[in-house]
Amino acid sequence: MKHLPQSEIALRVGKISQQLNALNTDAILISNNANIFYTSGQVFSGYAYITKDGETTYFVRRPVGLEGENIVYIHKPEQIADILQAQGKTLPKSIGLELDITPYSSIERLRKVFPEAVVSNASGILRTARSVKTAYEIDCLTRSGIKHAMVYSHIPSLFKEGMTDLELQVEIERLSRLQGCLGQFRISGESMELFMGNLLCGENADNPTPYDFAMGGAGLNPSLPVGCDGSTIKPGMTVMVDMNGNFTGYMTDMTRVFSVGKVDELAQKAHNCSIRITRELARAGKAGAEAKVLYEHAADIAREEGLEQYFMGHKQHAGFVGHGVGIEVNELPVIAPRSRDILSAGNAIALEPKFVIPHVGAVGIENTYVVTESGMESLTNAPEEIISLS
Amino acid sequence: MKHLPQSEIALRVGKISQQLNALNTDAILISNNANIFYTSGQVFSGYAYITKDGETTYFVRRPVGLEGENIVYIHKPEQIADILQAQGKTLPKSIGLELDITPYSSIERLRKVFPEAVVSNASGILRTARSVKTAYEIDCLTRSGIKHAMVYSHIPSLFKEGMTDLELQVEIERLSRLQGCLGQFRISGESMELFMGNLLCGENADNPTPYDFAMGGAGLNPSLPVGCDGSTIKPGMTVMVDMNGNFTGYMTDMTRVFSVGKVDELAQKAHNCSIRITRELARAGKAGAEAKVLYEHAADIAREEGLEQYFMGHKQHAGFVGHGVGIEVNELPVIAPRSRDILSAGNAIALEPKFVIPHVGAVGIENTYVVTESGMESLTNAPEEIISLS
Repeated sequence: MKHLPQSEIALRVGKISQQLNALNTDAILISNNANIFYTSGQVFSGYAYITKDGETTYFVRRPVGLEGENIVYIHKPEQIADILQAQGKTLPKSIGLELDITPYSSIERLRKVFPEAVVSNASGILRTARSVKTAYEIDCLTRSGIKHAMVYSHIPSLFKEGMTDLELQVEIERLSRLQGCLGQFRISGESMELFMGNLLCGENADNPTPYDFAMGGAGLNPSLPVGCDGSTIKPGMTVMVDMNGNFTGYMTDMTRVFSVGKVDELAQKAHNCSIRITRELARAGKAGAEAKVLYEHAADIAREEGLEQYFMGHKQHAGFVGHGVGIEVNELPVIAPRSRDILSAGNAIALEPKFVIPHVGAVGIENTYVVTESGMESLTNAPEEIISLS
Repeated sequence: MKHLPQSEIALRVGKISQQLNALNTDAILISNNANIFYTSGQVFSGYAYITKDGETTYFVRRPVGLEGENIVYIHKPEQIADILQAQGKTLPKSIGLELDITPYSSIERLRKVFPEAVVSNASGILRTARSVKTAYEIDCLTRSGIKHAMVYSHIPSLFKEGMTDLELQVEIERLSRLQGCLGQFRISGESMELFMGNLLCGENADNPTPYDFAMGGAGLNPSLPVGCDGSTIKPGMTVMVDMNGNFTGYMTDMTRVFSVGKVDELAQKAHNCSIRITRELARAGKAGAEAKVLYEHAADIAREEGLEQYFMGHKQHAGFVGHGVGIEVNELPVIAPRSRDILSAGNAIALEPKFVIPHVGAVGIENTYVVTESGMESLTNAPEEIISLS
């Protein structure tokens, strides 16, 4: 595939075939856009077929004219077995499919592509492979982080007195897009939707949402009940900006807090506590660290500072303090109380210890880090204190 | 539910329970955001349970504090059967689930909620119910269409000489968002992704994409290969604008073409042909019309005018000329060669007979219509000719 060096594809496919061997599964057949992008370097409509020997075939429906090796055009998945046999290949006796993300009807159809094969769930294989980023992927994230921080540095210049939360968010969207932000917020799973991120001002931050995001917001319409709600930004409120950092196909996640004039002492204290938590977790988050221990460390600090009732929400609490990021915004590992994840060098993790302070708004920061043997290194470098808009 | 009048919920649930009776299915259990929004008037995390008698229960996981009738809070779907039994209700012997859109693993879990029940596919029931809009829904679409057309009327004032396609698109995005566009592009199905619509200038329109959209574009990154690619807008090129019209949770679909100076005769001819096709189809598209006959009518006109090689694409052709719209952009009916759909009064249909002219770009218009007994009425009213940007 022309968008990704063959050596990079080999690295990624290697991580998949290694797991296939360990699980004694002959091959996987995947079609999810994020996984297609991961294994080929571009999104196409069709399937990537990867064997435990690392042989890869891209069965492409659309677009016409794709350039690269191992591409076979098909009209429908039912052709796949015949094509493999015509190439003299043995059909798999066991096949991994993306059972956690592919609709039931599509799986029932794909199952018949290899009617003799035992079907297993390949979702975990892909999630595991993708959780440890290659140097190439870390470079993509690094470039997203630089643009992301640059956009945030201009936020005070976008603010005008009397603006609503939507108006400020739209100016940030515009600047991000002009800097090359793709906009698309890729989220794994059934029911999380978000348009280019969240800007939460004042009490709107305490409106609970249906989605499993760290922060809330009533939104503009009951069809998308999250984020800004048209409130006017006023002195004493906080403005939490948590906007899309998808500049390269790989997303950094970054939050900063702004205000018009000073915020009250409790909000300031909670914000400083968030900074403290990210720093302590970044130090503790070495390869080999347990995700759940990191979560407990964060919750302990919040408790120690008497802020537990505001930690990760007030009316509704989110159940995590960090999450893997990459092609999608909710990758592994998850920094949560019951997580079994162990950090590895190459994990990209967003830490977002946030607080909602009634009558003031949301405070706290979020950075995206890469895990190393000696701790976590931030990719979203910018001032962390509450930044004045006035 | 507070966002939708009870009478409106009753209308929608009535369309579902009528089908359940016809199919002899006791109940459905649905969780897809679009279907949750349809049956409750708001998105929540959880399940809507609707019986063939029209009894509805909303099993809600998040957000906390939802107001309205028939709401039961749960932590997990496994509680549902016990709750129904505690309410003295009979458990269903047959249950419809959204097999076409819900991941395999989730269906396997939901199947165990009612272990005695026969599972059937409820996707078609929801698609059918949603394809015929209520007066309330048509009002939502009408309001979206008015805003959509208003935003388009300002496009010439957003253009500056030397702009790239991305720069113009971003200014349209900004204006739309300030007018209340939610941005979110809801698309049913596994693999179609789009960020707030497409602006295609010049030859970029002929770049094929993986997605089943009418038009193409290389995009800005291989992770999202669709739409504008950073080309500078120059005299003689067309600029096709096909941007998101989601102002109310219901999306209108609308396309207009702009240019700097005159475009060549072939492009002008094809654009006029598109206007002719929409007018003839809008006249022929009465309740009872066959979708495939409408498609053939459109293709016949393109052939008659000698434009078939450019019709619905040039290097890659889309296989339809129109599609239902509403909560999602790809609803029923589909105006395609092998469609079995018959038009009904209340269908909302986007007609988009488009052409790609090599070296010039994409031409043609798109309007969203409501089907009546006497034809189709446009909701996206604005001048249809190629509009000058200079």
